[in-house]
Amino acid sequence: MNSFGNKFRVSILGESHGPYVGVVLDGVKPGLPLCGEDFQADLDRRRAGAPGTTPRVEADKPEIVSGVFEGHTTGAPITILFKNENTRSQDYAALKDNPRPGHADQTAKVKYGGFNDPRGGGHFSGRLTVGIVVAGVVAKKMAPWCYEAEILEIGGNNRPEEWPALIEQTRSEGDSLGAVVECRVSGVPAGLGEPFWDSVESRLAHAIFAIPGVRGIEFGDGFASARMKGSEHNDAFGEDGIPVTNHAGGANGGITNGNPLVFRVAFKPTASIAKAGIPGRHDVCFALRTPVIVEAMAAIVLADFND
Amino acid sequence: MNSFGNKFRVSILGESHGPYVGVVLDGVKPGLPLCGEDFQADLDRRRAGAPGTTPRVEADKPEIVSGVFEGHTTGAPITILFKNENTRSQDYAALKDNPRPGHADQTAKVKYGGFNDPRGGGHFSGRLTVGIVVAGVVAKKMAPWCYEAEILEIGGNNRPEEWPALIEQTRSEGDSLGAVVECRVSGVPAGLGEPFWDSVESRLAHAIFAIPGVRGIEFGDGFASARMKGSEHNDAFGEDGIPVTNHAGGANGGITNGNPLVFRVAFKPTASIAKAGIPGRHDVCFALRTPVIVEAMAAIVLADFND
Amino acid sequence: MNSFGNKFRVSILGESHGPYVGVVLDGVKPGLPLCGEDFQADLDRRRAGAPGTTPRVEADKPEIVSGVFEGHTTGAPITILFKNENTRSQDYAALKDNPRPGHADQTAKVKYGGFNDPRGGGHFSGRLTVGIVVAGVVAKKMAPWCYEAEILEIGGNNRPEEWPALIEQTRSEGDSLGAVVECRVSGVPAGLGEPFWDSVESRLAHAIFAIPGVRGIEFGDGFASARMKGSEHNDAFGEDGIPVTNHAGGANGGITNGNPLVFRVAFKPTASIAKAGIPGRHDVCFALRTPVIVEAMAAIVLADFND
Amino acid sequence: MNSFGNKFRVSILGESHGPYVGVVLDGVKPGLPLCGEDFQADLDRRRAGAPGTTPRVEADKPEIVSGVFEGHTTGAPITILFKNENTRSQDYAALKDNPRPGHADQTAKVKYGGFNDPRGGGHFSGRLTVGIVVAGVVAKKMAPWCYEAEILEIGGNNRPEEWPALIEQTRSEGDSLGAVVECRVSGVPAGLGEPFWDSVESRLAHAIFAIPGVRGIEFGDGFASARMKGSEHNDAFGEDGIPVTNHAGGANGGITNGNPLVFRVAFKPTASIAKAGIPGRHDVCFALRTPVIVEAMAAIVLADFND
Repeated sequence: MNSFGNKFRVSILGESHGPYVGVVLDGVKPGLPLCGEDFQADLDRRRAGAPGTTPRVEADKPEIVSGVFEGHTTGAPITILFKNENTRSQDYAALKDNPRPGHADQTAKVKYGGFNDPRGGGHFSGRLTVGIVVAGVVAKKMAPWCYEAEILEIGGNNRPEEWPALIEQTRSEGDSLGAVVECRVSGVPAGLGEPFWDSVESRLAHAIFAIPGVRGIEFGDGFASARMKGSEHNDAFGEDGIPVTNHAGGANGGITNGNPLVFRVAFKPTASIAKAGIPGRHDVCFALRTPVIVEAMAAIVLADFND
Repeated sequence: MNSFGNKFRVSILGESHGPYVGVVLDGVKPGLPLCGEDFQADLDRRRAGAPGTTPRVEADKPEIVSGVFEGHTTGAPITILFKNENTRSQDYAALKDNPRPGHADQTAKVKYGGFNDPRGGGHFSGRLTVGIVVAGVVAKKMAPWCYEAEILEIGGNNRPEEWPALIEQTRSEGDSLGAVVECRVSGVPAGLGEPFWDSVESRLAHAIFAIPGVRGIEFGDGFASARMKGSEHNDAFGEDGIPVTNHAGGANGGITNGNPLVFRVAFKPTASIAKAGIPGRHDVCFALRTPVIVEAMAAIVLADFND
Repeated sequence: MNSFGNKFRVSILGESHGPYVGVVLDGVKPGLPLCGEDFQADLDRRRAGAPGTTPRVEADKPEIVSGVFEGHTTGAPITILFKNENTRSQDYAALKDNPRPGHADQTAKVKYGGFNDPRGGGHFSGRLTVGIVVAGVVAKKMAPWCYEAEILEIGGNNRPEEWPALIEQTRSEGDSLGAVVECRVSGVPAGLGEPFWDSVESRLAHAIFAIPGVRGIEFGDGFASARMKGSEHNDAFGEDGIPVTNHAGGANGGITNGNPLVFRVAFKPTASIAKAGIPGRHDVCFALRTPVIVEAMAAIVLADFND
Repeated sequence: MNSFGNKFRVSILGESHGPYVGVVLDGVKPGLPLCGEDFQADLDRRRAGAPGTTPRVEADKPEIVSGVFEGHTTGAPITILFKNENTRSQDYAALKDNPRPGHADQTAKVKYGGFNDPRGGGHFSGRLTVGIVVAGVVAKKMAPWCYEAEILEIGGNNRPEEWPALIEQTRSEGDSLGAVVECRVSGVPAGLGEPFWDSVESRLAHAIFAIPGVRGIEFGDGFASARMKGSEHNDAFGEDGIPVTNHAGGANGGITNGNPLVFRVAFKPTASIAKAGIPGRHDVCFALRTPVIVEAMAAIVLADFND
């Protein structure tokens, strides 16, 4: 089912080259102020156009179709749609017979017996993450903490001042780059998360791996913790019951402990590269556009845990 | 809710020092041969007693309480319980006032207003993973592919012949070790996984992070892919539509592609260490007991996707 | 959550006087032929305009927003919207302070703290059932059996030839009428339904009571069976294992038995009546428009059970 | 899936002649006082032994297997089991080849390919409702209102003083009787229930039809409302916003309105009758044992809606 969440549920719909993409948000509290402008700042962060991102630029103007009345959420499902305008389906005419490596073209064809919409990846397109961004904006109102995601490294390089040259050179080679994004959520109260199956890490990882192109996630010390000793990794408690260090990344036993949630996400390099003769307009490093999506996913998960 | 899965649902119940721990398995196909001995090999792999593992040894004898008739599954819920016998609650008497670092003691106390069962971690104990192992045995019958998980490295050391000495030395220091486990599932057909939210990676990560002590998960090239170029990371298709390399780890667009699923899991070092004066009986490296649990989780996820 | 179904899920969205009402259908099999005209016959059966129904006539033109490509379902979520055109919100301006008896005006106000959209009942309006009709059309393709619902009686009168006069007289008195609808689904295979909680009757009743204005449901002999003896009510088996009579209404132990499903639904009289000074345009007997909705609900439930 | 509820979830397990039947209750608030004696009064109401009920009498002693610590709920899943003791499987030896009319024997055989446990109806037995009773006891603590269900009529007779003779005569004829049960829940606050699918009537009907042998349910005026005019059926509001009459049965638009919830349930006559040569020990009128089960279902539904 194309939805996520129990108390706050995000359903996603649409295809890259269909009439609309969008989301339905269920379980939104009534009475939250909400208008179209609220989405703009986060939508701008996701938009293409900067160096390293695709020249396919959409207006990304959200249409609120239901669930908002007189500038406030009503408690009924909120539906937000985005018209697809800048579609160039001819780029993809041959996709059905020539699936692109690293995309869902082939697996979707197998799964749906060839009936999936192949244009631009159809329902599997990164285009659908525009809906995640607006879902995240609403989620941040329901779980109103401080969300900060940023690129840690691109192509293994963690010196931001060198990224423009690296991107430009990679573009000129017809190649692409991966990246690591770190997300920190501060102000989260202790006690969120559920035992056994719905640990806060389980739910966050579930949502994060829904973002196309994710290859890994780690919390706190992450993979490095597998090389540490217990005496190095343990977080001692302060007098307020909150750990004074944060090797764990903000949760113990799957339940938030009052520390910031900290996790890192590995994004693969863009699959479609000119070098391999893949037609279409592509990002050199699509991960540049993902920090706001990572934040949105964190907010979606936390809003679902929050009462 | 303490359950996972849509078509094959695993519910978990019990506390470390209560009368029983166990699982309820719903959605099991009728007519599968199943008897108590089927569980033994996997239960043995999880059991304590080997160097580096806790001296708390339980009989781990599964009692099938429902859902099996004349040696076959009936289609009704299967309930399997394990009596807790080897409990030494006095070790934990002071836990309520002295929560252990790195455990759920403190977060559970906050979450449940102090009403949680604190003995041995209660419902948050690693003891509950015994139920996951038997759930995995049933799942492997429903998703009958080849599951192989093994320790890749302990404390950063990837030479197995050196592990016994490393463990012994760490034990003598009253300290503990983390580890990395790799899991490979071969024979999985193409087409498993769902767009958008229920990618095969999303569901696997969700289940894996339910195992106590997990700090990270990565698929295929994982975090290394963030440092690769598209031309290095992409998997070209063979004539059968299956990629000839497996940088992706077995899925494209969240849907299995016919290659083996390959992922690695980072386990933190055991939190309870003698060095810090934590009473009780502990594993130096609890991760030694986890490969069979990782396999079980993979099977649980795949059985839920399978028709 | 405004959705129903596990394998075939229908989500409903919109408000009576908002820009759109509609549905999202998830879990639809790929490859079903589907186009806008497929909906017309059932939409026409629900439309207003006949004697006894409201003069608010909407175009009811479905817009397929996602999930259909080249005339076939793709397997991705199908979104279908209906523009609200014929809205006269001024009729309802005073609703917030003067809740209508028999409507959700007051209960929604309490539930949502006054933030619900009150115009025309908002999200609680019978207008939303237009989405159920199109969901039913798709469901009938997935569970392709013979659905026949019809009015049994109006205002206690079971002689159809007398209904026009009864309706006209009631209208002239500014009053309204209830009705009983009977639904029969033939061709349903044995074996649908799940033990204990998800009996076929449980799911059908659940869906039917979602239709505004339903006061009761009964299967087979229904309430009359409470006055029968076992020797009168039992259905003996034929040689094919299917009962030769159908007192039960098509299911035993909550599982379909190969007989037609037969159930009756009691609809209350329209709540809004001119006699009581309720402004707006109303049906004398809204139940006249419900047989197609009852059929749709039956199909939605059966499509969700069907593999 | 053999479970019901979103925030308060009741899972049911076991077979009539297996080792145990029972329930797992998830989502129970921590800190509720709970001990074995709390269940006794309601279990006694369900027990057999009175005139008109089966001579199969079980001890019905609940074993609390998890989720309770020092006399209070912990917030972890509560598991309660009942040992099956008084089983006489030889009565049922021939069931597999001779399915009983009016039971699930035949439909379960079709559904599960003959692998279902046929003894005493297996997982479809009324025996499983013992778990519903204890679930109801916990639910009543979470939704602490006044639940009163009683028999309205037996075999169409609504004069209680005549029931013993009616039952005795029917028993002597080897036949059985149906009944109508009415349930009233007082003190329920306004605002429970969800649009569109999860109206309070939808959820109650869903749960009630899970009780074996139910043929119909109606709320407030029920089927009679289909014969009333709007001017007769409408409930005018009092000054406090609560309707002064209760034709609706306690809800408007699917949301509780502050009035008592009132509904009636039709039970069929016991299917197994001596007259037809069905072996085993049976109730003349099993509905005599159902009022406490109906109350339990009402409480289970309301606890799931309650925050």
